[in-house]
Amino acid sequence: MKKIINDPIAVATELLDGLVDFYNGDARLDAPGVIVMNDIPDNKVALLVAGGSGHEPVYHGLIGKNFADGAACGDIFAAPPPNVMLDATRAVNKGNGVLYLYGNYAGDVMNFDIAQQMGRAEGIDIETVLIWDDVASAPPDQKDKRRGIAGLIPIVKLAGAASNSVDSLEELVGLTTKARDNTRSIGVALAPGSIPATGEPTFELAEDSIGVGMGIHGEQGVGVEKMMSANDLTVKMMDLIFGDDLSFESGAEVVILVNSLGSTTLMECLIVLKKAKQILNEKGIKIHDIITGNKVTCQEMAGLSISLTKLDDELKPLWDMPCSSLGYTKL
Amino acid sequence: MKKIINDPIAVATELLDGLVDFYNGDARLDAPGVIVMNDIPDNKVALLVAGGSGHEPVYHGLIGKNFADGAACGDIFAAPPPNVMLDATRAVNKGNGVLYLYGNYAGDVMNFDIAQQMGRAEGIDIETVLIWDDVASAPPDQKDKRRGIAGLIPIVKLAGAASNSVDSLEELVGLTTKARDNTRSIGVALAPGSIPATGEPTFELAEDSIGVGMGIHGEQGVGVEKMMSANDLTVKMMDLIFGDDLSFESGAEVVILVNSLGSTTLMECLIVLKKAKQILNEKGIKIHDIITGNKVTCQEMAGLSISLTKLDDELKPLWDMPCSSLGYTKL
Repeated sequence: MKKIINDPIAVATELLDGLVDFYNGDARLDAPGVIVMNDIPDNKVALLVAGGSGHEPVYHGLIGKNFADGAACGDIFAAPPPNVMLDATRAVNKGNGVLYLYGNYAGDVMNFDIAQQMGRAEGIDIETVLIWDDVASAPPDQKDKRRGIAGLIPIVKLAGAASNSVDSLEELVGLTTKARDNTRSIGVALAPGSIPATGEPTFELAEDSIGVGMGIHGEQGVGVEKMMSANDLTVKMMDLIFGDDLSFESGAEVVILVNSLGSTTLMECLIVLKKAKQILNEKGIKIHDIITGNKVTCQEMAGLSISLTKLDDELKPLWDMPCSSLGYTKL
Repeated sequence: MKKIINDPIAVATELLDGLVDFYNGDARLDAPGVIVMNDIPDNKVALLVAGGSGHEPVYHGLIGKNFADGAACGDIFAAPPPNVMLDATRAVNKGNGVLYLYGNYAGDVMNFDIAQQMGRAEGIDIETVLIWDDVASAPPDQKDKRRGIAGLIPIVKLAGAASNSVDSLEELVGLTTKARDNTRSIGVALAPGSIPATGEPTFELAEDSIGVGMGIHGEQGVGVEKMMSANDLTVKMMDLIFGDDLSFESGAEVVILVNSLGSTTLMECLIVLKKAKQILNEKGIKIHDIITGNKVTCQEMAGLSISLTKLDDELKPLWDMPCSSLGYTKL
């Protein structure tokens, strides 16, 4: 696999420099692995996201206006260490508390819990909301074992809007928890991405097969099946979401995200969106907004995911708030 | 190559349905192959884009607020026929003229010139601006032989803004021509995409090679070279742009687009952006804004392009106008 890189073991550092360049004066590299917006208002309740690199634009590409205030960035597919998270915490802290918002992966949870303890010991008020939207990764009564996948996009978008309207960390925790609890996702994998440092594939999957519910690093899903049509696949994916414990009743309003994991084309995402919209229409569910494209990726992995976020009177005005970041911009 | 589709020969039709769904009530399918915004104001000078499908989000994903008013869409990699372009012309026409803005490819020019004649015969005022930003496709004194590649993004963005501020088609032609004349692009290909109907690759390229200046369908560039580092490649690409006939003097202000052709990751785009910014800084050229990501694609083709658009006092306010579309949204 050819990639346009320089030093294979320095890609995470170099892409972060490029990300700071992308923000073109609006953000800075505050410490190694720490990117922070320059204009965080005094006394703002800060929103901090974090995770391994290699999934661009996530998470570090979700800083911006009405989005996250900063990000702690790890090496490729690796959680940033506690000291990087602590540096990021200090950089975004404006005296009114910091919310950690990130995907539920063991390495991240371990490192960021340590950072949270260290930050609290310095007198910074810190709370954590874990993202666990992937319905294929554990049963509904074991949500704390579920992985965070593309549902992080609507969740971070809503949390970013909320962080600009709340007065307290407690309020932000409440709204972000609701956004998380109202979001469900299911992914399918068609082909692996490759690890930049080695060129090796991230997992193996037969040419005629599709991994339903497989995680973005190749984690186990709900089954490997033969390749099928876009329509059959969409029905299967929507059934897995509707079969979960969050009710999507007739009259409900949702945001739908059809996310490409890398090399799956926007053409395919739109064909899946067509079928998904038909299914939602049949159920009387109203689509409030739609996102599609390469939002949560794993290098050039092929596959996609569908995420649904149910809005209510509290979340809808947050959704409608304009926002801007590398990962998602809404007018 | 596995793709998430239904009928391989119906992908263009199905993705267009999905695109209408994406616009979620803001756009409609007005005729087969014709997508049009619903809220075009009376007497607006209309902007119509057009081209083959398979390059999503381009061109049909560039309709939207302060963007194009409509698009005529062809089959995969095929120009829409004259009657589709004529239907699209009628659909966007609000009595104050229609600008055709599209990439300079022989099939498109032939079909849209016929549509222009037919539309004029109906009394619709129609002008055409061709996009020919690819410096690798012909020498500067033969611009009409150059292909339109990713520079279409800043050009259509500027034209979309202009179409909402001008009083006449003539004015829109002038501003769009300036945007076109101030834009230069260069692409590199690493690996082909695949044709949805057959699964066959769009071109061939050795595993250790890179096609400098190669077009998005595999058209001839300026040479096939051995794979090189991101930094060396960026220097080579920027040199090809600076070696062309548009001067980028110290103090000039530009928009830079680093575009992935499909499966090339945002990670790679950001690493190239870092080097490109360094080169621009050294020349005293100021970056006014940056776009990166999968904007002009050819299925899961690997490779990227760099585009520079030079802004002046007339183009800068147009650039700064917020806009929204599937392809590009600016707050």
